[in-house]
Amino acid sequence: MKHLLPLDDLIAALEKLPGIGKRSAERMAFALVQNRDGLARKLADALLVADEQVNTCSRCGSITVIKENPCALCTDGKRATGLLCVVESPGDIMKIESCNGFTGRYHVLGGHLSPALGKGVADLRVNELLSRLQSENIQEVLVALGTDVESEATASYLAELITSRGVKASRLAFGIPSGSAIEYTDATTLSRAIQGRQAL
Amino acid sequence: MKHLLPLDDLIAALEKLPGIGKRSAERMAFALVQNRDGLARKLADALLVADEQVNTCSRCGSITVIKENPCALCTDGKRATGLLCVVESPGDIMKIESCNGFTGRYHVLGGHLSPALGKGVADLRVNELLSRLQSENIQEVLVALGTDVESEATASYLAELITSRGVKASRLAFGIPSGSAIEYTDATTLSRAIQGRQAL
Repeated sequence: MKHLLPLDDLIAALEKLPGIGKRSAERMAFALVQNRDGLARKLADALLVADEQVNTCSRCGSITVIKENPCALCTDGKRATGLLCVVESPGDIMKIESCNGFTGRYHVLGGHLSPALGKGVADLRVNELLSRLQSENIQEVLVALGTDVESEATASYLAELITSRGVKASRLAFGIPSGSAIEYTDATTLSRAIQGRQAL
Repeated sequence: MKHLLPLDDLIAALEKLPGIGKRSAERMAFALVQNRDGLARKLADALLVADEQVNTCSRCGSITVIKENPCALCTDGKRATGLLCVVESPGDIMKIESCNGFTGRYHVLGGHLSPALGKGVADLRVNELLSRLQSENIQEVLVALGTDVESEATASYLAELITSRGVKASRLAFGIPSGSAIEYTDATTLSRAIQGRQAL
């Protein structure tokens, strides 16, 4: 479609967002330029503030505000110091924090190994993880990556590195999700839930 | 989830975009603050430029750049002057233009009548349409609204106003979409295609 130039530039920028295709970007751009509550300007301001103030924590690799480095989670004295949770992205930390079930600290890997995308060990924060094992006297690393093939391969690779340094490596339990019925559980999940069955 | 404040503000602004829920907004916000190609700044710049330069055409109600008012379509001398196409939004104009099948001019209604949302005649650009009928000596108005109940009711209402002023009102043909099989066509579409059958 032929658009106005300022609209084209806006659509091109919106299309770069994750999960946003050409159609969604066009729809958002039209909504933004037609919005009468100043949404375009509010969003622009929020972007500029976030761009200025949000930074990467030099210790865990998560995001933090510029004046807090290391981040609030890394410097929180109430958290267990010997337990480290490895995740792929900062969003995973927010998710785990929201369940209030983990009291240790975090380490953001920055993704998983992916030969197809040319993402190797050097592209992940693996060396930073290994040096933290020693400098922070870590007893156990909970490797909380996804359950796709590449993430599982990454987890196995990390587990080997971690245990070879005398540190315990663990991972999240597999099983049927809370609130789900056996009828609707897929075969892999079910067989893993059976393997990991627990005493009643 | 508990986030950093600048991130919260960004998520809140992104959530106001059409079709974007909490989860998508969080995903986009994380991607934006972690992007290393300056995407946040580029998007902010595109928003500010669009916000400054994009305006509403005083004649057709579509969007235009601030220095072109009336817009390029309204002032294009090559377009048929007696034929006006009424659409709900500027996006519809871009869509119709992309098929190269319409040579007249446009009028943006700004939505359709919706009692549920409290959207009445006063909220649409109906008076502007009626005054254009006379001032631009319009012969025919193609009412190109959607096919949901509210849009059809709006189209009927407009058709009455238009024909009562001695101007011809028409609408888009109903029928089976190009490239589609009869097997996959829904009953309403099919029955309308039969009603509107054409000589071979």
